[in-house]
Amino acid sequence: MSEAQPLPKNIGVVLFPGFQLLDAAGPLDALNILSLTHPLNLSILAHDLSPVSTRHHLHQAAGSNCQQSIVPTHTFANAPDDIEVLIIPGGTGSRKEENLDGVIEFLQKRWGSGGEEKKGALRWILTVCTGSAILAKSGVLDGRRATSNKKAFSWVREQNEKVEWVPKARWVKDGDIWTSSGIAAGIDMIYAWLEEVFGKETADLLADASEYERNRDPGNDRFAERWGAV
Amino acid sequence: MSEAQPLPKNIGVVLFPGFQLLDAAGPLDALNILSLTHPLNLSILAHDLSPVSTRHHLHQAAGSNCQQSIVPTHTFANAPDDIEVLIIPGGTGSRKEENLDGVIEFLQKRWGSGGEEKKGALRWILTVCTGSAILAKSGVLDGRRATSNKKAFSWVREQNEKVEWVPKARWVKDGDIWTSSGIAAGIDMIYAWLEEVFGKETADLLADASEYERNRDPGNDRFAERWGAV
Repeated sequence: MSEAQPLPKNIGVVLFPGFQLLDAAGPLDALNILSLTHPLNLSILAHDLSPVSTRHHLHQAAGSNCQQSIVPTHTFANAPDDIEVLIIPGGTGSRKEENLDGVIEFLQKRWGSGGEEKKGALRWILTVCTGSAILAKSGVLDGRRATSNKKAFSWVREQNEKVEWVPKARWVKDGDIWTSSGIAAGIDMIYAWLEEVFGKETADLLADASEYERNRDPGNDRFAERWGAV
Repeated sequence: MSEAQPLPKNIGVVLFPGFQLLDAAGPLDALNILSLTHPLNLSILAHDLSPVSTRHHLHQAAGSNCQQSIVPTHTFANAPDDIEVLIIPGGTGSRKEENLDGVIEFLQKRWGSGGEEKKGALRWILTVCTGSAILAKSGVLDGRRATSNKKAFSWVREQNEKVEWVPKARWVKDGDIWTSSGIAAGIDMIYAWLEEVFGKETADLLADASEYERNRDPGNDRFAERWGAV
């Protein structure tokens, strides 16, 4: 971040049916704590204002009813223009096209890709897990380095071959776009981002308050081998 | 767990205004993944069926609007009798008595403490962070070993001095009651519990799928010193 730029205040998170709870909750919990000492506004964005469930087609097939639903604050259509940071979780639900209704267009408008003119104040995009596959579909990652969930890596590659997919990485930073590996990796990424933007002291204080042991090395990723992504 | 006992299927999580998101989401995300291969039902319990927000009095004081609301599936009054496992997150909201309306009585009834007769199928209680302070208020932890959030440890101790509070522990297992240290420690605890109940192979597979590096040692807890709990 340029030192002349003010600290971000307005965050958005993109929800869709079948999102992975921890992909969203890991980063958001750190921001919830940060918001006690730094004014932050969070917009929870979805296609409409109905609660968005983590449940997806594979849960239905398994005969389980183990889901959580989060209440959106805005639709993609009426999302505030002042969102500076956008968090995109992944999840099995993203594999069904109908669950991403409105997501791709929203990303293209906010970043200014896919022939769209940039609208709004967006400065950073952070994806967790297969959230990078969603972002890849929007064209925003074309020509950029990015990572994703290691168990799903071969599927992710197929979503867009113009992305320089990095198999062995806890997270990848390419300019102001940060992509993390699967699920829990989003927690390490948010602390790395907080360190860059808010400083090391703040990031470490938040992690210690969360009793979280950070993986500080973006190259430290045993899950790439574990899941055959390399 | 006795080997003669069937694997648990019915889980409940207790929500209250100002709960800590990751306290709940860490364990629940692991259970969401488990529910793809093992039938699980989750009841999300609250005082009433209104969405329950993570926002608490300190967020209000800070001028931030950074919160998430989860939709309950049942009230404490109509919670299913077949709940076998109860997860209790902590959070700053638990410090205000009015936010715990109905929680203490519900715990006493389900475990059979505080002069209440045990009602229902409850076999395990798992608390995260200051969730153990809530459980301590119900009397369920009297005479038991338990741990809690390390930054809040002196406040937690004051909630019930009949509990044998263990300051240096990532988590503590006393019979079928498991208590974890702050926020992220709940993730290590749920994997330890899954290992005990569903087996090591299942627990490790879930953690690897979540790309989570487990802390497997309940005595490995640098946050006790970090926050002056010891």
